[in-house]
Amino acid sequence: MSEVYAVRRTRLRERCTAGGSAAALVTRPANVRYLAGAAPQGAVLLLGKREDLLVCRIPPDDRPHEGRPDEALRVHVLPQPSGDPAVAAAGLAQAQGADSLAVEEHHLTVARHRALASVAPRLRLTDLGTAVEQLRVVKDEEEISCLRIGAEIADQALGELLESILVGRTERHLALELERRLVDHGADGPAFPTSVATGPNSGRRGHRPTDRRVEEGDFLSVCLGAAYRGYRCEIGRTFVIGTSPADWQIQLYDLVFAAQRAGREALAPGAACRDVDRAARQVLDSAGYGEQLQPLTGHGVGLEIHEDPQLAPAAMGKLDACVPVTVEPGVHLPGRGGVRIDDTLVVRPEADGGPELLTITTKELLAL
Amino acid sequence: MSEVYAVRRTRLRERCTAGGSAAALVTRPANVRYLAGAAPQGAVLLLGKREDLLVCRIPPDDRPHEGRPDEALRVHVLPQPSGDPAVAAAGLAQAQGADSLAVEEHHLTVARHRALASVAPRLRLTDLGTAVEQLRVVKDEEEISCLRIGAEIADQALGELLESILVGRTERHLALELERRLVDHGADGPAFPTSVATGPNSGRRGHRPTDRRVEEGDFLSVCLGAAYRGYRCEIGRTFVIGTSPADWQIQLYDLVFAAQRAGREALAPGAACRDVDRAARQVLDSAGYGEQLQPLTGHGVGLEIHEDPQLAPAAMGKLDACVPVTVEPGVHLPGRGGVRIDDTLVVRPEADGGPELLTITTKELLAL
Repeated sequence: MSEVYAVRRTRLRERCTAGGSAAALVTRPANVRYLAGAAPQGAVLLLGKREDLLVCRIPPDDRPHEGRPDEALRVHVLPQPSGDPAVAAAGLAQAQGADSLAVEEHHLTVARHRALASVAPRLRLTDLGTAVEQLRVVKDEEEISCLRIGAEIADQALGELLESILVGRTERHLALELERRLVDHGADGPAFPTSVATGPNSGRRGHRPTDRRVEEGDFLSVCLGAAYRGYRCEIGRTFVIGTSPADWQIQLYDLVFAAQRAGREALAPGAACRDVDRAARQVLDSAGYGEQLQPLTGHGVGLEIHEDPQLAPAAMGKLDACVPVTVEPGVHLPGRGGVRIDDTLVVRPEADGGPELLTITTKELLAL
Repeated sequence: MSEVYAVRRTRLRERCTAGGSAAALVTRPANVRYLAGAAPQGAVLLLGKREDLLVCRIPPDDRPHEGRPDEALRVHVLPQPSGDPAVAAAGLAQAQGADSLAVEEHHLTVARHRALASVAPRLRLTDLGTAVEQLRVVKDEEEISCLRIGAEIADQALGELLESILVGRTERHLALELERRLVDHGADGPAFPTSVATGPNSGRRGHRPTDRRVEEGDFLSVCLGAAYRGYRCEIGRTFVIGTSPADWQIQLYDLVFAAQRAGREALAPGAACRDVDRAARQVLDSAGYGEQLQPLTGHGVGLEIHEDPQLAPAAMGKLDACVPVTVEPGVHLPGRGGVRIDDTLVVRPEADGGPELLTITTKELLAL
């Protein structure tokens, strides 16, 4: 695996050099992990003029869930654990003879940036921008394999929940049970706070579970994901509680299902992100639900649950092969509830069978 | 309750005015909640020249766990949910005629700071520093009451766990079970990721649970806390598994217990933070465990689990009455394990009975 990280660092270094910076400081934890194999609490990565260093507060220990630091990388542990590794790294960059250092201005606070400048006054601080995030968009097969395992775990946890009695249980308890099952099946933990929404809450994006109990006749929408070796996927489904869904529930479900399918089918290498969004969105728009729509209908996933690309009306750029994204349109009717359907898929060329669906739980409307 | 928030904002405004700023922008979520009663996702608080505004991406909804926005505060919802409320607030501050705006430079990123400057070029941006964090240090009785309830919940969850069979269960499962019990008893959720450490992991500060199973003869150390109405407390205990602790276990436990008691007994209004730290630390130092010690032996708690003050060797400042802090010395012997004992207490004058212990689970060495 070590070579993977070295190759990634080389790619970043080439970008930096092209941008006129001799050295780079990576502080955003997911970016540190991507380039160094692990991101111990507070650790930063220096791509130095002479040497790359993982600068940590305390020595990294052996935690398989959190990754192992690339052995090709020298680890520099601060003498005082209260120090700021970013500030120390700036000093080390200057000591290596660099005259400029590209930093992640979208992650560093103003106060830390000033501390860097003051400890290394001979360094010109430039902006690395989202260079690492851009490298992270297209995944290798090892990364996709972690996402695939995470999706299997989420499917299992959800499948088990559906076999249990739901009526009378609270959203918060169902969410906790799902999270326990994720861990039972080998997840590092939940990929994000599990969302369980019942009745009037159903269909709300990112709904945080309340003490409301599941009732007969409710829509129940669930959104969960597993983190597996750092990689985070997402699945969302909506069910109906009781034997016979109401007509409005069936109609709304079919509509969101059609929108979600249209989004999935639009995924292809070279497709514009905004066109994928539009494919899903226009199904809902034409049924008169345009106002209800959230700002995006999908997004990239990886070491973070929200990554580039965004599938949104104003999104720039096109999809590439091997980019994992969610497709997750939904409708929420205030006071009544609604439907969300959410899959994680990997963009693949048609010759390889088209988009690869990672989250395979059925999308039929189940009456539980 | 509304007056509480208005009084807090007035105190902050006085500080700003004294610092020469006409307006202030609060972006750190715990600070927003402290001053506005709630901090909906992404929301920021503008203390404006003419009017205070809570600037949000989406309308706040009614979530008792997350607080309700102060009704005396006008809510400004962005027309586009993809916008940055901080940037919008800077524009509003300028439109109100302010010529300067104090921002939280320890929280705003360099990139956001630049976006603020560009949307409001006539505003001079100054540094609010940690003014709000400093206001938050001394709690009112309502805040302490939330901490007290949170501590009761944590005590209950821990007590129930101790009644169950522990041998053979993994650290991760025990941690999840504790978190479920916290919610059962009315917590908003865990105050921080629950730590369960067995055998050689025991006694490690902030240990993240692994798949190691509890074994006969282990030390088991547990650290958990409940969030209740946003307020976060912490309790840590170490137990021994099996009927007869080894001599080294008893000795190490007694030592850490003595250190923790010394720290607790040093808590008093007017006591220097470093002296409280030293009281606990020197018990361990004199037994030869100085090298093992973590950078701090305690810290403030409140809307965040780590707040000022720090109980650490280089800490400045003194304790005030009504400041809740943890006292949590520990020793970890690599390869063998160790002991941590952690309480949340409120500093009170001797006339009021001295420090108020919020986490009342026994600190006898229990053999489970």
